[in-house]
Amino acid sequence: MPDQKIILPPGNLPLIVVIGAGFAGIELVRNLPEDLFRVLLIDRNNYHTFQPLLYQVAIGGLEPDSVAYPVRKIFSGRKNFYFRIAEVTGMDLDARTVATSVGTVRYDMLVVATGSQANFFGMDDLKSNSISLKSVTDALDLRSLILQNLEASLATTDETEREALLSMVVVGGGPTGIETAGALAELKKHVFRKDYPELDIGRMKVTLVEAGPELLASMSAKSRKAAEHFVRGMGIHLLLNTQVKNYDGQTLSLGNGETIPCKAVIWSAGVTGQLPALFPSGATEKGRIKTDEANRVTGYENVFALGDVAGIFTPSTPRGYPMLAPVAKQQGKHLAKNIIRQAAGSEMTPFSYTDKGTMATVGRAKAVLDFQKLHLHGFTAWIGWLFIHLMYLVGFRNKMIVLVNWMWNYIRYDSAIRLIIRPYKKKT
Amino acid sequence: MPDQKIILPPGNLPLIVVIGAGFAGIELVRNLPEDLFRVLLIDRNNYHTFQPLLYQVAIGGLEPDSVAYPVRKIFSGRKNFYFRIAEVTGMDLDARTVATSVGTVRYDMLVVATGSQANFFGMDDLKSNSISLKSVTDALDLRSLILQNLEASLATTDETEREALLSMVVVGGGPTGIETAGALAELKKHVFRKDYPELDIGRMKVTLVEAGPELLASMSAKSRKAAEHFVRGMGIHLLLNTQVKNYDGQTLSLGNGETIPCKAVIWSAGVTGQLPALFPSGATEKGRIKTDEANRVTGYENVFALGDVAGIFTPSTPRGYPMLAPVAKQQGKHLAKNIIRQAAGSEMTPFSYTDKGTMATVGRAKAVLDFQKLHLHGFTAWIGWLFIHLMYLVGFRNKMIVLVNWMWNYIRYDSAIRLIIRPYKKKT
Repeated sequence: MPDQKIILPPGNLPLIVVIGAGFAGIELVRNLPEDLFRVLLIDRNNYHTFQPLLYQVAIGGLEPDSVAYPVRKIFSGRKNFYFRIAEVTGMDLDARTVATSVGTVRYDMLVVATGSQANFFGMDDLKSNSISLKSVTDALDLRSLILQNLEASLATTDETEREALLSMVVVGGGPTGIETAGALAELKKHVFRKDYPELDIGRMKVTLVEAGPELLASMSAKSRKAAEHFVRGMGIHLLLNTQVKNYDGQTLSLGNGETIPCKAVIWSAGVTGQLPALFPSGATEKGRIKTDEANRVTGYENVFALGDVAGIFTPSTPRGYPMLAPVAKQQGKHLAKNIIRQAAGSEMTPFSYTDKGTMATVGRAKAVLDFQKLHLHGFTAWIGWLFIHLMYLVGFRNKMIVLVNWMWNYIRYDSAIRLIIRPYKKKT
Repeated sequence: MPDQKIILPPGNLPLIVVIGAGFAGIELVRNLPEDLFRVLLIDRNNYHTFQPLLYQVAIGGLEPDSVAYPVRKIFSGRKNFYFRIAEVTGMDLDARTVATSVGTVRYDMLVVATGSQANFFGMDDLKSNSISLKSVTDALDLRSLILQNLEASLATTDETEREALLSMVVVGGGPTGIETAGALAELKKHVFRKDYPELDIGRMKVTLVEAGPELLASMSAKSRKAAEHFVRGMGIHLLLNTQVKNYDGQTLSLGNGETIPCKAVIWSAGVTGQLPALFPSGATEKGRIKTDEANRVTGYENVFALGDVAGIFTPSTPRGYPMLAPVAKQQGKHLAKNIIRQAAGSEMTPFSYTDKGTMATVGRAKAVLDFQKLHLHGFTAWIGWLFIHLMYLVGFRNKMIVLVNWMWNYIRYDSAIRLIIRPYKKKT
C-alpha cells in the first residue's frame, strides 16, 4: 500500500516518529512530556522484548510473557501517543517521510532506535542454518529444535546421526553465549536425564566455541577466569582460540580444520546495527548510524539515532559505545532531556555513559559481576544478577511471575517448560 | 518412512500401545501397574492439553505452559514406559500393527484415545475460515487474530472494513462458547478500551450465535436462565434459534438470511470423534468408534477406545456418553482396572459414569454450576469453578502459576497477555 498514509488523530503539536520499541525507544518516550509533542512509535512487534533474558525462554526457564511486554500497556493512558505495528520499508530524510508496511508518515523529528541484529560476517550458510537469540520467536524456535532433536535421536539407528542430534554448539563466549551453554548443560543434567531414560544422556554434548583466548572478553580478569572455571566445571566442552567457518545444518567446520557433527548451532558471536531500509548509506559507518555526541545523525538536523544502531565515534569511543541495554536506556533518557532543552531554546548537551557494571551468569549460583573495583563470583554474584534483572523487567506482574518461576526452579530442578508448541522448521 | 520400526528397549512384557495423551490416555497409563506391561504412548504433541482452559490462552488470561503439561514429565521415573511424538498414519487391526510418522509398531493391546475434533457439518468455508479451540496453537492463533484485527482497524479508512475488523462472532452456546464470548466482552470493557484510545471501542461487537432456543442446553433450567442473564448483561449480542450457514472470512451468513460482517469467527458449535487414519469403518458409528460397555471395540478382542472417540451405544446412552473430560478420565481409570482384572483371569466389568456435575463461567463472578439438585450461580459458582479447574490442572507448578495469574487478574483488570508472537495467517 504505497500511497496510503498512516492515519493519526488530528493535532497541531510537532510529531516525533520513533522507530523501535527497544530499551532506547521506550526510555525516550517515557521521558518526553506528554503535552509538547505528539509521538508515533513504530515496531514490528506489539511488544517490547527484554532481550537479556531471551535465552531463558529458549531453555524453558520462562514463558514469552515474562520477557515481552505489550507496548500499548506500557503507555496506557498517555496523551498524544500513537503506536503502529509496522515494518519500515523506506525513508526520505529530505522530504521528512518514513514509509512502512501500513502507510507513510511525515515527521517533524525522527528517532531511529532499531537495535542490532546477528552478524554472521558474510557466512551465509551459518546464517541460514543457525539460530541467534534476538527475538521471542528465535527463542521459541530454539526451544522446539532442541526438544525435536532429542525426540528424533530416539528414532534413529544411525550412530552418526544420533551423535549430531545430541550435539549442541554455542558460538561466542560473551554473556549470551555462556548463559545459553550453561543453561543447556543444566537442562541435560537435571531435566533431560530424567525425561529420556531410554537415552544414554552422557552422549548429549554441549560445546562452547570462542574465537578469542578467553570468555567474557569485556569483563575483568577475575571474572574471565571465574567464568571459565564455571563453564569447565559444568561439563561444557570449551574451545578457545577457535574460529567457526561454515555450518551446513549437519556439520560445523572450524578454522583449525576440525569438524563437529551437530544439528543445533546457536550463534551469539557478533552483532551489528540493524539499519532501517533505505537509510542513507552516507550517514552510516561500521554498520551503525553516525551521530554526534547528542545522538544527532550527521547531516540531518531533526534525525536522531539511539542505542545499538547509533555510532558515536569519538577519540574516547573509537568503536562507538558497547551495544548494551544500559547504554540504550541512558541514551533514550538523555535525548528526551535534550529535546526538552531544545524546545526551551537551549543547546543540546553531549551524552556520556555511566558504566553501572557488567555481569553474566553460567548457572545456578554461578555468576560473575564487575562493578568498578568490585568483582564477585559465585552465589553472591548470582543473587545480584537475579535481583538486578528482576528490577529491570518492565511491569509488576512480569516480575511476580518471573520470581515465582525462579524460586520454583531453585527449589526443584525440574520445572523447565518443555513444550514444542510450534515445531521448528528451517528457514528456506 | 514406511519400513522403519519404532525402536523400543528390549522386553518380554506385553506391549500396550495408547494413541492420544488426552484425559483418557493419561488416566489409563497412570493407573496401569508398571511391571505387568510395557506401555507405548503416542501423541502428535509432546504435551497433554488441558482443553477446558484453552479459551483462557486465547483471550490472554494464561500462557500455554499453564494449560499444557509435558508427557515425559507426567510419567517421569515410570518403568517400562515409552513415549513418541508421532502422527498415526494407518493401522492393521488384524496384523496388530499401527503405522506412524516415526515408524510402525506391533501391539499386544491397542487403546485408541484420540479425542474429538470440531464438527463443521460439511460447511467447508466455515472450516477453513473460522478458528475452533481444540489445541494450544488454535488458541494462540485466535489471540493473534483478535489483536491483529484491532490494530488493522486503526489503519483503514473503509467503514465497512472497520466494522468487520471490530466484530467477533462466537458460534455455539455451550460452555466453551459462552466462556469465550464472555471473556471477549471483558477484554473489550477492561483492556482494549484503555489500550486503543484512538478507537471508539463501543464499536467493537461480540456476538454469540446459538442454534437452539437456550444457552447451555445440557444444564439445568436455572443455570440456562442465569447464563443468558449474564451474557445479556455483559453487552454480548445474543442470537438464539439462529443457524449459521456460511463464512467466507469476511461475512457470516445466517440461516434466517441475515449477514454479519466479521473478520473473526470462533467455532464451538459441535464436535465429532477424531478417528485415527485408516480405522476400519465397520467399527465406527456416528463419527465414533463402537465399543461394548467395557470400551472394547466391537469385533476386536484386544482393541479398546476411550473418551470422546468412544461410542458406547446402549438403550440408556443411545447417543453415547457426552464428550466431556470427566467421562474420559473415568473411562481411562476403569479400563486400567479391567486390564488388571483380565490379567488376573477375571472378566472385565462394564463402565458406568458418575456425573459429578457441570459448570460454566461467563466472566468475573459470573458462573453457573449444577451438582445433582444443587444449582449455584454468580460469585459462589465462580469460586467453585476456579477451585475445581485448579484442582484438575496437572502439576503443582502449573497450579501455582495459574493461581498467581488469576489472583492478579482479579485484583487488576489489566493483566491480559496481549502479545502477537506469531501473527495468524489463514490456512490455505
